[in-house]
Amino acid sequence: MTVLTDPATDLAPRILTGERRALARAITLVESGRADHRAQAAALLDVLAGRGKQALRIGLSGTPGVGKSTFIESFGMMLVGQGLKVAVLAVDPSSARSGGSILGDKTRMERLSREPMAFIRPSPSQAQLGGVARRTREAVSLCEAAGFDVVLIETVGVGQSETLVAEMTDLFILLMAPAGGDELQGVKRGIMEMADMILVNKADGDLKAAALRTRSDYAGALRLLRRRPQDPEGFPKAVAVSALAEEGLKAAWEDMQALAEWRRAQGHFERRRAEQARHWFETEVREGLLARLHTDPEVRARMQALGASVAAGHAAPAAAAAEMLAALGR
Amino acid sequence: MTVLTDPATDLAPRILTGERRALARAITLVESGRADHRAQAAALLDVLAGRGKQALRIGLSGTPGVGKSTFIESFGMMLVGQGLKVAVLAVDPSSARSGGSILGDKTRMERLSREPMAFIRPSPSQAQLGGVARRTREAVSLCEAAGFDVVLIETVGVGQSETLVAEMTDLFILLMAPAGGDELQGVKRGIMEMADMILVNKADGDLKAAALRTRSDYAGALRLLRRRPQDPEGFPKAVAVSALAEEGLKAAWEDMQALAEWRRAQGHFERRRAEQARHWFETEVREGLLARLHTDPEVRARMQALGASVAAGHAAPAAAAAEMLAALGR
Repeated sequence: MTVLTDPATDLAPRILTGERRALARAITLVESGRADHRAQAAALLDVLAGRGKQALRIGLSGTPGVGKSTFIESFGMMLVGQGLKVAVLAVDPSSARSGGSILGDKTRMERLSREPMAFIRPSPSQAQLGGVARRTREAVSLCEAAGFDVVLIETVGVGQSETLVAEMTDLFILLMAPAGGDELQGVKRGIMEMADMILVNKADGDLKAAALRTRSDYAGALRLLRRRPQDPEGFPKAVAVSALAEEGLKAAWEDMQALAEWRRAQGHFERRRAEQARHWFETEVREGLLARLHTDPEVRARMQALGASVAAGHAAPAAAAAEMLAALGR
Repeated sequence: MTVLTDPATDLAPRILTGERRALARAITLVESGRADHRAQAAALLDVLAGRGKQALRIGLSGTPGVGKSTFIESFGMMLVGQGLKVAVLAVDPSSARSGGSILGDKTRMERLSREPMAFIRPSPSQAQLGGVARRTREAVSLCEAAGFDVVLIETVGVGQSETLVAEMTDLFILLMAPAGGDELQGVKRGIMEMADMILVNKADGDLKAAALRTRSDYAGALRLLRRRPQDPEGFPKAVAVSALAEEGLKAAWEDMQALAEWRRAQGHFERRRAEQARHWFETEVREGLLARLHTDPEVRARMQALGASVAAGHAAPAAAAAEMLAALGR
């Protein structure tokens, strides 16, 4: 990547004017694992903190095959048509293996990727979910500084990535395909409980009837869940949409806005943001603390020496750990 | 709990002579979360390090209903009958809620619990799996110091607890009930890969035929797994047993011994122990480091102040984290 001499002074004003190239560069910077890049990224984020716009952060999860790309394309174009700037990011824990499987191919969203009001960023190849989380949260901050109105964070419906995306967004949307009653049973309760809205896609052509039935099944399932304090009457909600026919998208967007507005009025919105920021701070401290065990050569050497002594049976693990912790200062 | 003035000098010699009451007290000490108890426990473990006996550590997992208690009772009595001292510990991540659900009721193993050669310790109620892991590993060390020949660590077949038990034992045994072919599909591949032996229990009465068929199904499934370097020909192995009729237990024990002997001869046994000890040391260092964020009042106050500042939007999470890390020393 290009070496940036002083990204805080160089990139910050360009990001604040919404320059997409500067935004892309800044995201590349936050994605870097190099120590100097980390320091530059932290400085840049600090300069930008609290500036720009408070976007609506929307998490979007759905397993492969539910039509996520088509949905993002249609939904994104609809938002752009309303004069809104839309950023799309991706969290894909599988990309470490596949080399960036989701959003990797921008041609999947051909119209949106050519749209000046939109910004699409594929998922980077990262080894750790923790690393993915940080770079995504930081990318969201950068998109807000660049004045985006809506930040969509796409994830595949597997394991921890959904929890992670839910923890960094204001709304969490589950995109589903029309399904038989049996398949509905397979949706994990935890994921249902995270969802603010379930959108049943493909409510078009031959699948329309199935989609409407599935929507009604999910609506029933959602009613069985305990009412959450952050939800107004009628939420979480299941609706049917067709990304392909571009139907139901405006109504879904109105629902999302109504939900966000209600939460803003009740104070839930800001409280959640504050909790998320605090959580992010605490996570960074913990990760930074643990990183010292590997980055500081002296500490690393001592860890290895004590570890070898424990492995050889010369020291008990707990006693060696106590010695190491004493060496690490109070 | 009883306050112990100097457990290292008081308890250590009593443990080394195999006194069960001293062992029970020492385990209570390692289970305590109090800082002074932690320090006493670490000192005690260090005094005992490398003394006593190298027991065979056997992890035993099985979902409720497979007859785990009956198996431990029969298997334990069989070992005692061979002149071996047997300790039984439990790892139960659900016990934080249930208040110690497994081994909680010693009457489940009536004969074994009355046996002077045996020691049974129920699962404590602990909030964190990490805490459970540490106290169990330390309890294993104490049992070895007390001269036990076999330490059985029981766990319920859920989630992470199996991985955790596999990481602290020499052999990992999966106890299963006779099942239909469909159920076999449901056994997670990861768990199959951890197992050194699968024992299909209840090979008696009406279920005998089903148990033999299930055994054969598992044997087939195990053959499909890649041969592991730590396994001799024929392992991992599936055998049928009846804990109730006390059948097949001696043969299973001979298999376990043969496997352990082979691994000892190949150097796998000691290598694995060394890796486990190193892993335990590293885990303790990481946990100890993170604990400082909560235990040191000054650090905790600063974390709270910076966290509040981040939550209020006055500081960016990454910059606040950098400030906190700087305050924590190099």
